[in-house]
Formats: sequence, C-alpha cells, structure tokens
Amino acid sequence: MAGYDIKQTDGGVTAAKGYKAAGVAAHIKYDNRKDLAMIYSEKPAKVAGMFTSNVVKAAPVKFDMDIVANSPFVQAVVVNSGIANAATGEPGMEICRKTAKAVADALSIPENAVLIGSTGVIGEQIPIDRITAGVSELAKNLSDTRQAAADAEAAIMTTDTVPKEVAVTVTIGGKTVTIGGMSKGSGMIHPNMCTMLAYICTDCAISKEMLDKAAHADIPDTFNMITVDGDTSTNDTYLVLANGLAENPVIDCEGDDFNAFMAALHYVNEYLAKHMAKDGEGANALFEVKVVGADTKENARKLARSVAGSSLCKAAIFGHDSNFGRFLCALGYSGADFDPDKVSLDYESRAGSIRVFDKGLKAAYSEDEATAILSEDEITVIVHMNMGEAEATAWGCDLTFDYVKINADYRS
Amino acid sequence: MAGYDIKQTDGGVTAAKGYKAAGVAAHIKYDNRKDLAMIYSEKPAKVAGMFTSNVVKAAPVKFDMDIVANSPFVQAVVVNSGIANAATGEPGMEICRKTAKAVADALSIPENAVLIGSTGVIGEQIPIDRITAGVSELAKNLSDTRQAAADAEAAIMTTDTVPKEVAVTVTIGGKTVTIGGMSKGSGMIHPNMCTMLAYICTDCAISKEMLDKAAHADIPDTFNMITVDGDTSTNDTYLVLANGLAENPVIDCEGDDFNAFMAALHYVNEYLAKHMAKDGEGANALFEVKVVGADTKENARKLARSVAGSSLCKAAIFGHDSNFGRFLCALGYSGADFDPDKVSLDYESRAGSIRVFDKGLKAAYSEDEATAILSEDEITVIVHMNMGEAEATAWGCDLTFDYVKINADYRS
Repeated sequence: MAGYDIKQTDGGVTAAKGYKAAGVAAHIKYDNRKDLAMIYSEKPAKVAGMFTSNVVKAAPVKFDMDIVANSPFVQAVVVNSGIANAATGEPGMEICRKTAKAVADALSIPENAVLIGSTGVIGEQIPIDRITAGVSELAKNLSDTRQAAADAEAAIMTTDTVPKEVAVTVTIGGKTVTIGGMSKGSGMIHPNMCTMLAYICTDCAISKEMLDKAAHADIPDTFNMITVDGDTSTNDTYLVLANGLAENPVIDCEGDDFNAFMAALHYVNEYLAKHMAKDGEGANALFEVKVVGADTKENARKLARSVAGSSLCKAAIFGHDSNFGRFLCALGYSGADFDPDKVSLDYESRAGSIRVFDKGLKAAYSEDEATAILSEDEITVIVHMNMGEAEATAWGCDLTFDYVKINADYRS
Repeated sequence: MAGYDIKQTDGGVTAAKGYKAAGVAAHIKYDNRKDLAMIYSEKPAKVAGMFTSNVVKAAPVKFDMDIVANSPFVQAVVVNSGIANAATGEPGMEICRKTAKAVADALSIPENAVLIGSTGVIGEQIPIDRITAGVSELAKNLSDTRQAAADAEAAIMTTDTVPKEVAVTVTIGGKTVTIGGMSKGSGMIHPNMCTMLAYICTDCAISKEMLDKAAHADIPDTFNMITVDGDTSTNDTYLVLANGLAENPVIDCEGDDFNAFMAALHYVNEYLAKHMAKDGEGANALFEVKVVGADTKENARKLARSVAGSSLCKAAIFGHDSNFGRFLCALGYSGADFDPDKVSLDYESRAGSIRVFDKGLKAAYSEDEATAILSEDEITVIVHMNMGEAEATAWGCDLTFDYVKINADYRS
C-alpha cells in the first residue's frame, strides 16, 4: 500500500519481539522428520482467527474457535503434522484438551491460552503420549532465533516442497512494528487436503477488536484467493497473535496507524498466500488471474477464482497452450453474469505481454509468442471485463502429472 | 422403474421408427476421421432440450434454444466436432444460420426445423464451405441402419475412447415404443471441455409439453449427476425428438403411459450418462457415489456430486487408496449441512463390500480388503447420512496421469 514504509526482512514467526519457537520430531506418524511445532509469546497476546468453512471441522479447529472467541489472551500455539485429528469424534476433542494441558503445564500458562493445529491424514487418532513427550522437548528448545522459526515451519510442512516464511517491519506511532509469519499447504477456500495453516506473530499493540477487523478485511483478498484443487480442507486455520511489545500507541480505532498495520499485514498475507499457490502440489508454475473492469468486487473475485481453479485452465498452463477458450469457459460458469462480447484477455509473464481475445473475438496474435509467454514459471492472465471498476486477483498453479501422483500416493 | 417391460437392444439414434442418420469426414479440423453427423426424422418431430448454464453459450446453443422454444416441430440435427463455435460473436451465429439453410435445402424441410450442435476448440470460426459440402454428402448417405447410427456417433466423438449408444423398447398403449440415443463427452453440470452432447430419438407419440416435462424431470438425476472435471462447457446440449410413428395413443397428460415412457427414457439417459462418466478423459474406473438417508433430495444430490467431483477423492480412487477422510471432507464442503458424527461410509465393487467409517469414527477394517475393493473398474462409495429418506447417485471417474496429459496436449 502506498505511503507506508514496509520493509521485508529475512525472518519467520520469531521476527517480532517476544516470540520464541521450536520444532521437533515427535514421531506422530513420520519417522525421521520434525512433525511438532510450538510458538510461544512471552507476553500474553491478543488473537484473531479464521477457520475452514467445511461442515466436517477437525477437532483442533473446533478447539481453537472456542479459544479465539472466549479467551482474553493466548500465549502458545502447538501444531502437529502427520495426522489431521479430523473425523475423530469425542476422542479427538479429548486429545486437544490433553494437548493444551500438557502445553500449559510445560510453560506455566493457563490452559485456555493454548491454541492447537493439526494437518495430515483424516480419520486417525493422534497418539497422545507422543504429543506430551514432544511438548516437553519443545518447551526446552524454545528460542527466538531465525533457526527456531525455520524449525517450527519445517515441522508443520507436509507435501510442501519449500518453506513459506516472511517478516516485515513498518513504523507505527514512531515505533518499529514487526510482523512475522509462516504457513504451509496450498489453500483456504480451496485448499489441498494437506490443509492450509498460517500463523502470524506481531509485536504490534492493537486491540482484539481491531486485530480481528484487520484479519477479516484482508483474508478475502489474500488467502481466500488462492486455490490448488477445489478441495476445502477440514483443518484450515489462520491465526494472528499480537503481543504489544513494539510499544506503539495501542491501535484501538481506524486511522493512519490502523492503515499502516493493515498494509503490513496485507504484505505478509499476500506473500504467504502467493507462495503457497506457487508451491501447490506438483506445480511447475504460479498461475495468477487478474480480473479488471468488473461490475462489483464480489464478481471480480468469483471470476478470478473460477479461472484459477479450473482443471482445464490449469492443464493448459501446464501444457504452455494458448487455449484461451478455456479461460472464457471458466469465466462463464463462475456464477457472475456478464456479456462475453465485451471481454478481452491478455497473457503476461517475464517473456512479454500479448492480447489473445479482444471484445468477444479471437485476436490476431502469434502462437509462438503466446507459447513463449506461457512457458515461464510465473504467468498472469489478465481478464478485462469492460463493465466497471472492480478488480480482484487470484493465485493458483498448473495441473501436472505430479499432482496426480502425489495424491494417488499421499496416504501410503 | 419397476413394472414396465423395458428391453435394451443393440442400437442407436436410428433404432426408433422413421429416423435416419449419417456421419462423414468434412475436414473441419481433423484430417482423417468423421467429424460431421446428421440425424433426420422422416416425420416432423416434437422436441425438448436442455442446455448449458454457462454464461458463455456457444452459437449453436443459442440457435437451438430459440428453435426448441419456438418451432412447432423439427426434422434434422446436424453436429460437427473439431470446433465448438463458441466465443465467436456474430460471425458464429451467421455460420449457424447458413448451416441451417444448407440442411433445409438439402432435405427440403423448413429452416426452423433444423437443430445444430458443435464440439471442439473454443474461439475458432468454423469454415462454412466445409459444412455445406459435408451437408450435401450427409443428405445422400442418410440411412436407417445400425451402421448409420454408429457413423453419426463416430462423427461427434472427440477425446471419447468408446462410443455411447443405447436403445430400448417399452410397451405403451399396446404399441412397442422405441427410444434410441447417442452421446459424447463427459458431463453436463461439470462437463469436460470437449462438451457433453446427447441426442435421443423416439417414435413415441407424445405432446411437446409432456416430452419437455419428462426430459426436465429426469435430467437432474442422470446427466446432471455426472462429473469429470468441474468445468461446465459452453456447448452442452441434450435434445430428445419424438416423431409419433409408434402409433401409441398420444401421451398428453400424466398417468401410466407417461410413467412407462419416463421409465424407458430414464433407462436411456442413465445408461448414456454412466457410460460418459466411465469414459471420462483418462479414466480407468467408474466412480459411483450413492448417498442414502439424506434429509432432502437436493442435499442428497449436492453431497453425491461433491464427492464424485473432488480431485482428491478421484485421485484416491486412481491410487486404490482407502483414504476415506477425503470423502468426508468433500461431503463437508458440499454446501449441505449435516452432523459428521452420524455419517457412515461403505465401499462396494465386484470384489465385495466393506464399512470403513461408522457414525463418526473409523471402523475396524482390513486395508487389504479395502484396496482389493477399490482396485476394480467400477467402484461405489455408499454414504449413509442417517438423517432421512432422500437418496441420490452421482457418477464420476478417477483422476489419472492421462487426464492431465490429454488436457495439456488437447488443442495441439
């Protein structure tokens, strides 16, 4: 956002003041990798969260929804990979309660200051003894180093091939405020079964109400605009913690300070969201769909998401094939109404920019040039609706052989 | 449907009295295969139709919608493969009008008795001279033989690997009524870009109103319950012609005769729909999802379609992997509300039947047995909602490497 001095730095969830993290191998399902992560805030932190819309909500999602709604503050998040603790009934909820108790005991904090996340296979019960053993080890290893943040990220990854971490600073009320975050998975509205989890830690001083407002205002244009495969997970979780250690004047209403925080939070959310899309299962390319000139913001989002989520559009990107009819087709079943004769389409990438469809008819363009543009690893399709002023951008990835391979084999 | 003596016979669109067909190579886009089909009814026929819900409707869809709504009868259908005549603006509509005129001239019928269908690449214009030349050849080749029906089917196929034709007889008012049909593609609500086209020809004597009623009542449970990839085409078309040559008492109201016709039409529609799903692009297996005990019919359909259409469920079927959590997850984001703790899941195939999830918790079952059941080429997942009496079945297919290969390469 213009006007705010947002600086990206190398860092993750330990970048902001007062946060520690750790990641260990708790042998929950995997043998030889980190699979249990912890984030700890020295000072009680305000929290806001958003969760999956799936009717089948994992036990930790139900647990966290209650904490976010009812706890005055939180201090720890513990997250396991390997087993999702979803479709596990009352025994699954009991595991959450036991986990929270173990964390509370280890860190000497209240049980209702603990949040929990899980990602992995649905329907299996988590072995609680491995969680409790892992929690003890995590509590001992907590550290505010860059490496500790990386360890936590490593422990929550599943089919991710690269870590997704980011940190930024922004000046608010004369103080340097830092926001650091990590995420895994590939979606929120349409996440990969491995689940999208995102944890953001800031030292900003902000009221719970305004933190919640910032998160809910930004997610529709960031995490909710990425898609990998149309499958909305049982476990999707976004949490943002704010512990106030930056000592800026507390943000408790709208205004310039709130806008600066929003801009920095948007930077972090968009960065993590785009990187999740680009690391979608089996993906070779980031597939960005930018809708401009739509009649309403809601329709712009629908149109952009529909194209980014279409299997046929994604396969065309994989094939570097200028099959622009597929983009039109996906616009047409998006649910938004429009006049096809007003629509124009451009392709854009590092290799150049080209118009392929111009107000309802195929444009005269070079297929070789189009193929060259579509052969890059970051491709944008720009959709001109020519109806109004609303815009939205969605991020997806190409559909590849490896997507099928990963998901045919994932569980075994 | 119980109580009606429906007999399946070997036949296609020429099975019912008074129908002729032909298929020729018109070189519209392909070099060495049939790509233009014609169906002709000796006697003017009543017609009913259903078309794509996509906002971007192909020119022949718009053309046919007008004919079905406004023409008192029809006598011919001409269909090309290779180019979809979608996103082609006014020039595309002009091609439809010229095609209809060529057919009307060749067969000496009114121009508004001609229906048109197209399937193939979007955005290209059809070379009209090849259509007119092909129409002359089709008119000469028209025949009521089994082979003529097969030629017409061959001409409308694109990535289909097997033809989909069926014919049945049923006794109505003491007369033998025949219904024959052909289709191509793999979907209607969620068709494959190659488009679902279905043409049904019957000699039943039935009013236009009751024909329309029968088609609209049956399609929500047949063609609208198949899915291959979630992409609703610009060209989807279902047409049923009825020329009355069976000489049964005209069906002009509800009652036993109408029910017998409905039962026979349902048989034909379900047969063609299932076979399209099984021949979905790249598919190795038919993936049937049967939802029982739902609260409403609408929710039963939503739930079944959501599972059958999920990329992750389809990939699990491809991998013969009992990853039942994916089925639960897809139920959860279907849009239907339910209590996950009441749900049970069974797998069923020629290799046996097994319960894998029982009222909210994983059942004790043998993974080897589950894998054996999931390794057949026709697999049913039965979803017990335990909420009410409503049922629905959806048909899809597995998601394979070949699906990606076909769609990354399709246009070139």
